[in-house]
Amino acid sequence: MPTIFAKIINREIPAHIVYEDDLVIAFLDISQATKGHTLVVSKELSKDIFELKPETASHLFMVAQKLSVAIQKAFHVSGLNILSNNGETAGQSVFHFHIHLIPRYAKGDLSFQLPNNMGSVTFDEYKERAQKIKEALS
Amino acid sequence: MPTIFAKIINREIPAHIVYEDDLVIAFLDISQATKGHTLVVSKELSKDIFELKPETASHLFMVAQKLSVAIQKAFHVSGLNILSNNGETAGQSVFHFHIHLIPRYAKGDLSFQLPNNMGSVTFDEYKERAQKIKEALS
Repeated sequence: MPTIFAKIINREIPAHIVYEDDLVIAFLDISQATKGHTLVVSKELSKDIFELKPETASHLFMVAQKLSVAIQKAFHVSGLNILSNNGETAGQSVFHFHIHLIPRYAKGDLSFQLPNNMGSVTFDEYKERAQKIKEALS
Repeated sequence: MPTIFAKIINREIPAHIVYEDDLVIAFLDISQATKGHTLVVSKELSKDIFELKPETASHLFMVAQKLSVAIQKAFHVSGLNILSNNGETAGQSVFHFHIHLIPRYAKGDLSFQLPNNMGSVTFDEYKERAQKIKEALS
Protein backbone atom coordinates (compact mmCIF):
# COMPACT_ATOMS: atom_id res chain seq x y z
CA MET A 1 0.00 0.00 0.00
CA PRO A 2 1.42 3.41 -0.91
CA THR A 3 2.38 5.58 2.05
CA ILE A 4 1.06 9.10 2.45
CA PHE A 5 4.48 10.31 1.22
CA ALA A 6 4.21 8.25 -1.98
CA LYS A 7 0.83 9.91 -2.54
CA ILE A 8 2.43 13.34 -2.12
CA ILE A 9 5.20 12.39 -4.57
CA ASN A 10 2.54 11.25 -7.07
CA ARG A 11 0.47 14.41 -6.52
CA GLU A 12 -2.47 12.36 -5.30
CA ILE A 13 -2.66 14.48 -2.17
CA PRO A 14 -1.43 18.05 -1.74
CA ALA A 15 1.51 19.27 0.32
CA HIS A 16 3.47 22.48 0.71
CA ILE A 17 6.47 21.36 -1.34
CA VAL A 18 9.66 23.40 -0.91
CA TYR A 19 12.11 21.36 -3.01
CA GLU A 20 12.06 18.48 -5.47
CA ASP A 21 14.47 16.66 -7.76
CA ASP A 22 14.77 13.16 -9.22
CA LEU A 23 15.72 11.50 -5.93
CA VAL A 24 14.11 13.49 -3.14
CA ILE A 25 11.20 15.72 -2.26
CA ALA A 26 10.89 18.14 0.67
CA PHE A 27 7.71 19.63 2.07
CA LEU A 28 6.38 21.15 5.28
CA ASP A 29 5.51 18.62 7.96
CA ILE A 30 1.80 19.10 8.48
CA SER A 31 2.33 18.92 12.26
CA GLN A 32 4.72 21.95 12.26
CA ALA A 33 6.35 20.99 15.58
CA THR A 34 7.99 24.39 15.20
CA LYS A 35 7.64 27.05 12.49
CA GLY A 36 9.27 25.80 9.29
CA HIS A 37 9.40 22.11 10.32
CA THR A 38 10.25 20.35 7.05
CA LEU A 39 10.51 16.72 5.89
CA VAL A 40 13.09 15.52 3.39
CA VAL A 41 11.82 12.30 1.81
CA SER A 42 13.43 9.81 -0.57
CA LYS A 43 11.47 9.15 -3.74
CA GLU A 44 12.87 5.64 -3.55
CA LEU A 45 10.29 3.59 -1.65
CA SER A 46 12.68 2.37 1.05
CA LYS A 47 10.99 2.10 4.39
CA ASP A 48 13.95 3.13 6.57
CA ILE A 49 17.67 3.93 6.75
CA PHE A 50 18.49 0.21 6.71
CA GLU A 51 16.86 -0.23 3.29
CA LEU A 52 17.86 3.11 1.78
CA LYS A 53 20.45 3.02 -1.01
CA PRO A 54 23.74 4.60 0.15
CA GLU A 55 23.77 6.91 -2.91
CA THR A 56 20.24 8.11 -2.11
CA ALA A 57 21.32 8.76 1.51
CA SER A 58 24.23 10.76 0.18
CA HIS A 59 22.16 12.98 -2.08
CA LEU A 60 19.34 13.37 0.42
CA PHE A 61 21.61 14.72 3.14
CA MET A 62 23.26 17.18 0.78
CA VAL A 63 19.77 18.52 0.06
CA ALA A 64 19.04 18.54 3.81
CA GLN A 65 22.16 20.65 4.42
CA LYS A 66 21.12 23.19 1.80
CA LEU A 67 17.56 23.26 3.15
CA SER A 68 18.90 23.79 6.69
CA VAL A 69 20.74 26.90 5.50
CA ALA A 70 17.62 28.10 3.66
CA ILE A 71 15.46 27.54 6.76
CA GLN A 72 17.94 29.43 8.92
CA LYS A 73 17.83 32.32 6.46
CA ALA A 74 14.03 32.23 6.06
CA PHE A 75 13.11 32.16 9.74
CA HIS A 76 16.21 33.41 11.59
CA VAL A 77 16.27 30.23 13.64
CA SER A 78 18.79 29.91 16.46
CA GLY A 79 19.14 26.16 16.11
CA LEU A 80 17.92 23.13 14.22
CA ASN A 81 17.46 19.46 15.01
CA ILE A 82 17.77 16.83 12.35
CA LEU A 83 15.86 13.70 13.30
CA SER A 84 15.12 10.45 11.54
CA ASN A 85 13.12 7.72 13.25
CA ASN A 86 13.67 4.26 11.84
CA GLY A 87 11.51 1.38 13.02
CA GLU A 88 8.40 1.43 15.17
CA THR A 89 10.39 1.27 18.42
CA ALA A 90 12.24 4.41 17.26
CA GLY A 91 8.94 6.27 16.85
CA GLN A 92 8.60 5.91 13.07
CA SER A 93 5.00 6.34 11.97
CA VAL A 94 5.23 6.64 8.17
CA PHE A 95 7.21 3.73 6.77
CA HIS A 96 8.90 5.59 3.95
CA PHE A 97 12.37 6.99 4.66
CA HIS A 98 12.38 10.63 5.77
CA ILE A 99 14.25 13.06 7.94
CA HIS A 100 12.83 15.91 9.95
CA LEU A 101 14.40 19.37 9.91
CA ILE A 102 13.11 20.99 13.10
CA PRO A 103 13.93 24.68 13.54
CA ARG A 104 14.56 25.85 17.10
CA TYR A 105 13.81 29.31 18.38
CA ALA A 106 14.34 29.17 22.11
CA LYS A 107 15.85 26.80 24.61
CA GLY A 108 13.26 24.51 26.09
CA ASP A 109 10.68 24.77 23.30
CA LEU A 110 11.34 21.07 22.68
CA SER A 111 13.38 18.37 24.38
CA PHE A 112 15.60 15.66 22.91
CA GLN A 113 17.41 14.52 26.03
CA LEU A 114 19.65 11.49 25.78
CA PRO A 115 20.44 9.50 28.91
CA ASN A 116 24.11 9.42 29.91
CA ASN A 117 25.22 5.93 30.87
CA MET A 118 28.91 6.74 30.99
CA GLY A 119 29.48 5.47 34.51
CA SER A 120 27.80 2.13 33.93
CA VAL A 121 29.67 0.94 30.81
CA THR A 122 33.04 -0.75 31.37
CA PHE A 123 36.09 -0.30 29.14
CA ASP A 124 35.72 -3.90 27.96
CA GLU A 125 32.08 -3.31 27.05
CA TYR A 126 32.99 -0.23 24.98
CA LYS A 127 35.72 -2.27 23.30
CA GLU A 128 33.43 -5.18 22.55
CA ARG A 129 30.70 -2.91 21.15
CA ALA A 130 33.16 -1.10 18.86
CA GLN A 131 34.57 -4.43 17.71
CA LYS A 132 31.10 -5.75 16.83
CA ILE A 133 30.34 -2.69 14.69
CA LYS A 134 33.69 -2.90 12.90
CA GLU A 135 33.13 -6.57 12.13
CA ALA A 136 29.61 -5.92 10.86
CA LEU A 137 30.90 -3.11 8.61
CA SER A 138 33.41 -5.29 6.81
CA MET B 1 40.16 26.04 20.92
CA PRO B 2 40.00 22.50 19.53
CA THR B 3 36.86 20.58 20.43
CA ILE B 4 37.02 17.21 22.11
CA PHE B 5 36.21 15.69 18.69
CA ALA B 6 39.21 17.43 17.07
CA LYS B 7 41.34 15.91 19.82
CA ILE B 8 39.96 12.46 19.01
CA ILE B 9 40.66 13.01 15.29
CA ASN B 10 44.23 14.06 16.14
CA ARG B 11 44.66 11.08 18.49
CA GLU B 12 45.27 13.39 21.45
CA ILE B 13 42.58 11.61 23.42
CA PRO B 14 41.39 8.03 22.95
CA ALA B 15 38.04 6.85 21.63
CA HIS B 16 36.49 3.61 20.49
CA ILE B 17 36.73 4.33 16.77
CA VAL B 18 34.59 2.18 14.48
CA TYR B 19 35.21 3.87 11.11
CA GLU B 20 37.50 6.48 9.60
CA ASP B 21 38.28 7.92 6.18
CA ASP B 22 39.56 11.25 4.82
CA LEU B 23 36.37 13.17 5.55
CA VAL B 24 34.73 11.56 8.56
CA ILE B 25 35.38 9.59 11.71
CA ALA B 26 32.90 7.51 13.73
CA PHE B 27 33.29 6.33 17.31
CA LEU B 28 31.16 5.21 20.23
CA ASP B 29 29.48 8.04 22.11
CA ILE B 30 30.95 7.83 25.59
CA SER B 31 27.47 8.35 27.07
CA GLN B 32 26.05 5.21 25.33
CA ALA B 33 22.44 6.40 25.56
CA THR B 34 21.72 2.89 24.32
CA LYS B 35 24.04 -0.01 23.47
CA GLY B 36 25.99 0.82 20.32
CA HIS B 37 25.25 4.60 20.35
CA THR B 38 27.68 5.97 17.77
CA LEU B 39 28.73 9.43 16.60
CA VAL B 40 29.59 10.24 13.00
CA VAL B 41 31.76 13.35 12.95
CA SER B 42 33.09 15.51 10.10
CA LYS B 43 36.85 15.96 10.08
CA GLU B 44 36.14 19.38 8.63
CA LEU B 45 35.98 21.74 11.62
CA SER B 46 32.52 23.11 10.84
CA LYS B 47 30.57 23.78 13.98
CA ASP B 48 27.12 22.83 12.68
CA ILE B 49 24.96 21.86 9.69
CA PHE B 50 24.79 25.50 8.59
CA GLU B 51 28.58 25.68 8.17
CA LEU B 52 29.15 22.15 6.87
CA LYS B 53 30.17 21.84 3.22
CA PRO B 54 27.39 20.18 1.17
CA GLU B 55 29.83 17.60 -0.19
CA THR B 56 30.92 16.67 3.35
CA ALA B 57 27.27 16.32 4.36
CA SER B 58 26.77 14.03 1.40
CA HIS B 59 29.65 11.72 2.21
CA LEU B 60 28.96 11.74 5.94
CA PHE B 61 25.39 10.54 5.53
CA MET B 62 26.40 7.78 3.15
CA VAL B 63 28.76 6.57 5.88
CA ALA B 64 25.94 6.96 8.45
CA GLN B 65 23.69 4.76 6.31
CA LYS B 66 26.32 2.02 6.10
CA LEU B 67 27.02 2.28 9.83
CA SER B 68 23.28 2.02 10.57
CA VAL B 69 23.17 -1.28 8.71
CA ALA B 70 26.29 -2.47 10.53
CA ILE B 71 24.81 -1.48 13.91
CA GLN B 72 21.58 -3.30 13.10
CA LYS B 73 23.58 -6.40 12.21
CA ALA B 74 25.90 -6.13 15.22
CA PHE B 75 23.26 -5.67 17.91
CA HIS B 76 20.00 -6.91 16.34
CA VAL B 77 18.40 -3.54 17.05
CA SER B 78 14.70 -3.09 16.34
CA GLY B 79 15.03 0.58 15.46
CA LEU B 80 17.44 3.49 15.22
CA ASN B 81 17.18 7.23 15.65
CA ILE B 82 19.44 9.57 13.75
CA LEU B 83 19.80 12.88 15.56
CA SER B 84 21.87 15.97 14.96
CA ASN B 85 21.61 18.96 17.29
CA ASN B 86 22.72 22.23 15.74
CA GLY B 87 23.01 25.32 17.93
CA GLU B 88 22.80 25.65 21.69
CA THR B 89 19.00 26.03 21.64
CA ALA B 90 18.84 22.70 19.79
CA GLY B 91 20.81 20.99 22.55
CA GLN B 92 24.22 20.99 20.86
CA SER B 93 27.02 20.66 23.40
CA VAL B 94 30.12 19.98 21.27
CA PHE B 95 30.42 22.62 18.58
CA HIS B 96 31.84 20.39 15.88
CA PHE B 97 29.34 18.88 13.43
CA HIS B 98 28.20 15.39 14.35
CA ILE B 99 25.24 13.09 14.11
CA HIS B 100 24.10 10.53 16.64
CA LEU B 101 23.12 7.01 15.63
CA ILE B 102 21.00 5.76 18.53
CA PRO B 103 20.00 2.08 18.43
CA ARG B 104 16.60 1.25 19.86
CA TYR B 105 15.71 -2.01 21.49
CA ALA B 106 12.26 -1.54 22.97
CA LYS B 107 9.48 0.96 22.71
CA GLY B 108 9.69 3.54 25.44
CA ASP B 109 13.39 3.15 26.25
CA LEU B 110 13.78 6.74 25.00
CA SER B 111 11.42 9.46 23.86
CA PHE B 112 11.66 11.90 20.95
CA GLN B 113 8.13 13.21 20.89
CA LEU B 114 7.34 16.09 18.57
CA PRO B 115 4.37 18.34 19.31
CA ASN B 116 1.60 18.31 16.72
CA ASN B 117 0.40 21.82 15.91
CA MET B 118 -1.67 20.80 12.92
CA GLY B 119 -4.90 22.38 14.11
CA SER B 120 -3.34 25.75 14.91
CA VAL B 121 -1.60 26.51 11.60
CA THR B 122 -3.75 28.05 8.84
CA PHE B 123 -3.47 27.22 5.14
CA ASP B 124 -2.05 30.69 4.48
CA GLU B 125 0.58 30.21 7.17
CA TYR B 126 1.71 26.91 5.63
CA LYS B 127 1.81 28.62 2.24
CA GLU B 128 3.83 31.57 3.52
CA ARG B 129 6.31 29.31 5.34
CA ALA B 130 6.87 27.16 2.26
CA GLN B 131 7.29 30.27 0.12
CA LYS B 132 9.93 31.69 2.49
CA ILE B 133 11.98 28.48 2.35
CA LYS B 134 11.76 28.32 -1.46
CA GLU B 135 12.92 31.93 -1.74
CA ALA B 136 15.80 31.36 0.67
CA LEU B 137 16.89 28.28 -1.30
CA SER B 138 17.23 30.13 -4.57
